[in-house]
Amino acid sequence: MKRKICVVVASRANYGRVKYLLKALQKIESVELQIIVGASMMLDRFGKAVEVLKKDGFIPNRSLYYVIEGETLATQAKSTGLGIMELSNVFEDLKPNLVVTVADRFETMATAIATTYLNIKLVHIQGGEISGNIDERVRHAITKLSDLHFPSTEESKERLIKMGENPKYIFNFGCPAMDILKNENLNIDNELMFNYSGVGVQTNWEKPYILLSQHPVTTSYGEGREQITESLYALKELKDIQKIILWPNIDAGSDDVAGGIRKFRELNMQENFQYFKNFSPEVYAKVINNASCVVGNSSSFIRECSFLGTPAVIIGDRQEGREHGKNVIFSTYERDDIMDKINKQLSHKKFKSDKIFGYGDAGDKIAKILSTIDLDKINKRNTY
Amino acid sequence: MKRKICVVVASRANYGRVKYLLKALQKIESVELQIIVGASMMLDRFGKAVEVLKKDGFIPNRSLYYVIEGETLATQAKSTGLGIMELSNVFEDLKPNLVVTVADRFETMATAIATTYLNIKLVHIQGGEISGNIDERVRHAITKLSDLHFPSTEESKERLIKMGENPKYIFNFGCPAMDILKNENLNIDNELMFNYSGVGVQTNWEKPYILLSQHPVTTSYGEGREQITESLYALKELKDIQKIILWPNIDAGSDDVAGGIRKFRELNMQENFQYFKNFSPEVYAKVINNASCVVGNSSSFIRECSFLGTPAVIIGDRQEGREHGKNVIFSTYERDDIMDKINKQLSHKKFKSDKIFGYGDAGDKIAKILSTIDLDKINKRNTY
Amino acid sequence: MKRKICVVVASRANYGRVKYLLKALQKIESVELQIIVGASMMLDRFGKAVEVLKKDGFIPNRSLYYVIEGETLATQAKSTGLGIMELSNVFEDLKPNLVVTVADRFETMATAIATTYLNIKLVHIQGGEISGNIDERVRHAITKLSDLHFPSTEESKERLIKMGENPKYIFNFGCPAMDILKNENLNIDNELMFNYSGVGVQTNWEKPYILLSQHPVTTSYGEGREQITESLYALKELKDIQKIILWPNIDAGSDDVAGGIRKFRELNMQENFQYFKNFSPEVYAKVINNASCVVGNSSSFIRECSFLGTPAVIIGDRQEGREHGKNVIFSTYERDDIMDKINKQLSHKKFKSDKIFGYGDAGDKIAKILSTIDLDKINKRNTY
Amino acid sequence: MKRKICVVVASRANYGRVKYLLKALQKIESVELQIIVGASMMLDRFGKAVEVLKKDGFIPNRSLYYVIEGETLATQAKSTGLGIMELSNVFEDLKPNLVVTVADRFETMATAIATTYLNIKLVHIQGGEISGNIDERVRHAITKLSDLHFPSTEESKERLIKMGENPKYIFNFGCPAMDILKNENLNIDNELMFNYSGVGVQTNWEKPYILLSQHPVTTSYGEGREQITESLYALKELKDIQKIILWPNIDAGSDDVAGGIRKFRELNMQENFQYFKNFSPEVYAKVINNASCVVGNSSSFIRECSFLGTPAVIIGDRQEGREHGKNVIFSTYERDDIMDKINKQLSHKKFKSDKIFGYGDAGDKIAKILSTIDLDKINKRNTY
Repeated sequence: MKRKICVVVASRANYGRVKYLLKALQKIESVELQIIVGASMMLDRFGKAVEVLKKDGFIPNRSLYYVIEGETLATQAKSTGLGIMELSNVFEDLKPNLVVTVADRFETMATAIATTYLNIKLVHIQGGEISGNIDERVRHAITKLSDLHFPSTEESKERLIKMGENPKYIFNFGCPAMDILKNENLNIDNELMFNYSGVGVQTNWEKPYILLSQHPVTTSYGEGREQITESLYALKELKDIQKIILWPNIDAGSDDVAGGIRKFRELNMQENFQYFKNFSPEVYAKVINNASCVVGNSSSFIRECSFLGTPAVIIGDRQEGREHGKNVIFSTYERDDIMDKINKQLSHKKFKSDKIFGYGDAGDKIAKILSTIDLDKINKRNTY
Repeated sequence: MKRKICVVVASRANYGRVKYLLKALQKIESVELQIIVGASMMLDRFGKAVEVLKKDGFIPNRSLYYVIEGETLATQAKSTGLGIMELSNVFEDLKPNLVVTVADRFETMATAIATTYLNIKLVHIQGGEISGNIDERVRHAITKLSDLHFPSTEESKERLIKMGENPKYIFNFGCPAMDILKNENLNIDNELMFNYSGVGVQTNWEKPYILLSQHPVTTSYGEGREQITESLYALKELKDIQKIILWPNIDAGSDDVAGGIRKFRELNMQENFQYFKNFSPEVYAKVINNASCVVGNSSSFIRECSFLGTPAVIIGDRQEGREHGKNVIFSTYERDDIMDKINKQLSHKKFKSDKIFGYGDAGDKIAKILSTIDLDKINKRNTY
Repeated sequence: MKRKICVVVASRANYGRVKYLLKALQKIESVELQIIVGASMMLDRFGKAVEVLKKDGFIPNRSLYYVIEGETLATQAKSTGLGIMELSNVFEDLKPNLVVTVADRFETMATAIATTYLNIKLVHIQGGEISGNIDERVRHAITKLSDLHFPSTEESKERLIKMGENPKYIFNFGCPAMDILKNENLNIDNELMFNYSGVGVQTNWEKPYILLSQHPVTTSYGEGREQITESLYALKELKDIQKIILWPNIDAGSDDVAGGIRKFRELNMQENFQYFKNFSPEVYAKVINNASCVVGNSSSFIRECSFLGTPAVIIGDRQEGREHGKNVIFSTYERDDIMDKINKQLSHKKFKSDKIFGYGDAGDKIAKILSTIDLDKINKRNTY
Repeated sequence: MKRKICVVVASRANYGRVKYLLKALQKIESVELQIIVGASMMLDRFGKAVEVLKKDGFIPNRSLYYVIEGETLATQAKSTGLGIMELSNVFEDLKPNLVVTVADRFETMATAIATTYLNIKLVHIQGGEISGNIDERVRHAITKLSDLHFPSTEESKERLIKMGENPKYIFNFGCPAMDILKNENLNIDNELMFNYSGVGVQTNWEKPYILLSQHPVTTSYGEGREQITESLYALKELKDIQKIILWPNIDAGSDDVAGGIRKFRELNMQENFQYFKNFSPEVYAKVINNASCVVGNSSSFIRECSFLGTPAVIIGDRQEGREHGKNVIFSTYERDDIMDKINKQLSHKKFKSDKIFGYGDAGDKIAKILSTIDLDKINKRNTY
């Protein structure tokens, strides 16, 4: 009987991270790959990334809707609850031997809880990292529920061992998000980008641009509007360069951030800004690879951009304490500070590729472990 | 403004552990005590322990029902999901500054998740212990979500520190379940027990008896019936002593265990066994204090019985690896082994009180910390 | 492509009513029969009737748990909500052409709502009847959601037409619950009943007995304990005849009724009463066929017992206004009145079979319509 | 003790219909008005109409989120289920004597079910009407659950009586949506509209314009994109007049319709179309009062526009069979047909006010009945 490996993909960012793992699992004869797509992957408002996944040749076994609309703290909590209920049904039905979950968001937590209570082995990718926000708590909590760990860095691996996880079941192959960067053509041109129509002034992708991607920070819920506004006005000062703005993800507070962007846009229709809902993982890789500077708090600025060497200005404390490459400098939420830091980065230009998050071959290596490791021997206990 | 401290009480065992904490919080002028009762506390089938809580002078702010009946693995997972949804509503409404949760069951996890996503400080009692079963994972995961920790032993405290929790926010005052043992009269007599009518042969509480309390083990879901049957037949061999049997708790698999008990009862109506649904925490303390031997896998046999010195035979691996006093010996699920171990304990008689779980004054001490600690300074980060 | 007909069976009573319909559908070549079992069908506490269904040779496509334990008004409402969520998932997955639902309970409503919003044709069995309680409202509301109606009597059929339903889609073939009565051996003997072990004094099934089955009445929620107590003490007065007591169903208030029964049982252990959780539909048919008198408010006393001619005393208003045969007399909740009415019925003995609920061949006839009717032509509109 | 009357407001359309009822109830001394806002009232994507309600001086007792994002048939069904769960909690807490619900959407059904199972008297506004779509079924089903009925027309009242409702509890005071039309200034000017910034070419509100508002039709789920596209191209042909487009409501299929609008907008950026998310009820009244013609399938075109005399072209079968004034003509989904019918209406100009939906004083009259009627005497039974 084939080993059933179930990967839950619950956001566009998730998908970017597991795409090459899915490809690798798909090729292994002894594996029955089960794909569950859910949460913002299904939603028009977040770019319905499930369509990208399908175009890439994957067929979801189940498509779940468990986002309770509202983007308040309570709807985020309740979406977690609803996600557990929906995923429990599906796991009971599909009976996987392993469930794979990525990172640290509420959808990840829902997957982890449902898997745990159904007595299924849980696999966690990107554990052991530190950061600000609720994310850090959730990430470590998921670690304590997981049987197999694939952290992205040596430092994270060491942290997992210190936390009491069994070193035998911790594998650092780097971050699977690097796989896209290594395997795909990362050049950009206007023809390719023709299909991406954002609102605002049309970008010439062959000329310099800055990318802004700034998500709400759950622990400072309610301040998102002001924070994004500072960033946008900082960018406005940099007259000569094009600006690409990405809408925020589905976290509590995203309405706030989106409201700030809408207001700014209304008042600054003539400025050289263009606004995008989202890109496919491949196109996103191109966009950050070719940006003169990336600004905001997306974790991809730390992770992918260190591999790519793209200069990054990280705003606020959402990524605080994270391991990062030389390409990163930090800024407060003040517009002057942001502007200064961007100018500094613009004058530096591209950095050398930093491999702290791996070499871009994690997908294959993780797939190999998942398909061959002796599951019966895993009997999770704290090591001390 | 008073500090709002919300205690979620979700099972009769929970209640026994926080009763003296509730009493202490109730007396502090600067505290607004909020009590939420939920899950099996509300259910007739589990003795509706909410009534005991009310008789003790506590008034629940909210009574929640979130147990999806069925006692399968999936209903346990889904009850967790439903609990998160219900508790999120309530926390949003009551806006507590602190939420207190106890131990490691699915209801505890539901409380922890809802509290975390609503950005409320989480307090965990009884963290840091190790054991078999899903409970250990859940317990450690809750630790990683918690801001304040009140472990029950020095060893547990040390474990929390090693796991990366901030020592400044870890307090070992012993287990608050000891408070009942210290503060209440633990003698037993027939008059007092007159109101507790179990099915079976009437017990003479002033004569020797053995107590059996054996819960289903989630990680060996499906074997509960056989396991309990072995235990019951082991007890049957011990002709000359009375046997008290407690129905299992609400964990996945409890139907199985209950079925085993029912079958045994049917076939052994004349034997000196009596079957009880549950006791109030005070009466339960009397029952275990005066038992000649306690048998099964209730965590109270390790915890409370070490304080009381009651000889205990722990069956199976549900409490495996737990810190314990000298009163405990372990047994397999085999009836002969169980019988041997019970005989050994019966010949030893009462042990000396062991204080590894504290001195019975934890409630007061925890209440004092909760009411005075500077909440604004707490900014949870892993220590490494 | 086969026509997919999905029957939702959500209680032991439901199952008794559709058993012969299921048998008939199973035999039709052009039909793919889908069976969903849920709610109390799955629960140990209500006799896990799903096991009977499986023994009868049916294989459920899905088994759902959606009872939120508690039996309050709110848990009943919330179980309806949860049922809708679970059933929507399943209908989306199984894509039936027709969904069949029976009668008027909260599980029936859940089925009706999920079916309606998923744009699937809804079939309702036992519509058009009147009665007291919330049941009547729910029954008529389901009628207004249904595309095809199979009422049990001519009077009900006429009522549906008056309510604006299209006569072309209303078929009175009698009640399918009669099919069991017609097709199965209804004699009873002690050997057969040997496996049914109720608590209490062992019944001699070959001697006269009275059956009591009294459910909580939602519209007088809170009075159930007193009501059942009156009935039990009325029965106690009838010294010379054996008494069979059935536990109540899962409606809001069943805890109350159950509590009343438990208390009575405790105080009257020596009386010739025996208490049963439930019987399979076939055995239940034998039990009511051979009873000297049936007492309480079960709708089977009106429906099945009119066909069988069993004398019935209906207590209270739960069945008020229902069409009934000559076998029925009504009583208040007063113990004296109940006793008088029972005595009257006992002196009358068996009545002649009354066919107001049909001839026992409804299952076949309904199956034939369901498998052949032109679904594309059904376009539900009020007739006026 | 004051009579607690709870009004559930679950969409911007709902609010427009009960605004004057809320005002009237607020003024009655003997009434405690409870307002629950939920579903799309809370959502940014649907204009967060709760803010309008608050500005009008109402304070919601509870704000609920129960929309599961996705706009598929299944998410609509599941949102109903979730709504029942959330509303049950709130009704249990607020203990209203009466719950008021309006019209026929899934949120209305959720309110009706929760109210029914909690044994609270249910009041239904706008019952008895006929129409195509699932709405008709749901509307009649809610009628069968309701204790008090306030239909909007004599014909609807007669229909309710025929359906078996007690004439004593049916009151036709006309539609409360007319109250806004009667009581408020319905002139429009550019200054007032300055705050409403839609995407597209800026409208001169003092010149002629056509309004298009077309919602998805649940029973033809999947065809919404094509349908809206036909309408938009029909409007494009009418070169000389301005076009106002409203985004669709939250029904299953709204993504489809929205997608069609977005595509059209992209390809026709220079055309004199402007696109709006929503208006407050008062501004909406102005917009339809001053439109040269309204086009689509909004029920307000039949209801409010008959009172206002605004020429209307109703597309498709969503409003089929509805009672309507002389201002209405019907069209197929074909663009040529739509264009012809609009031209016909444009040449006719304003119609005389038609009072089939009442005189604009329903709010006061309904409030009076709700505050004075003897609730204890209501004992709902079918009249035949």
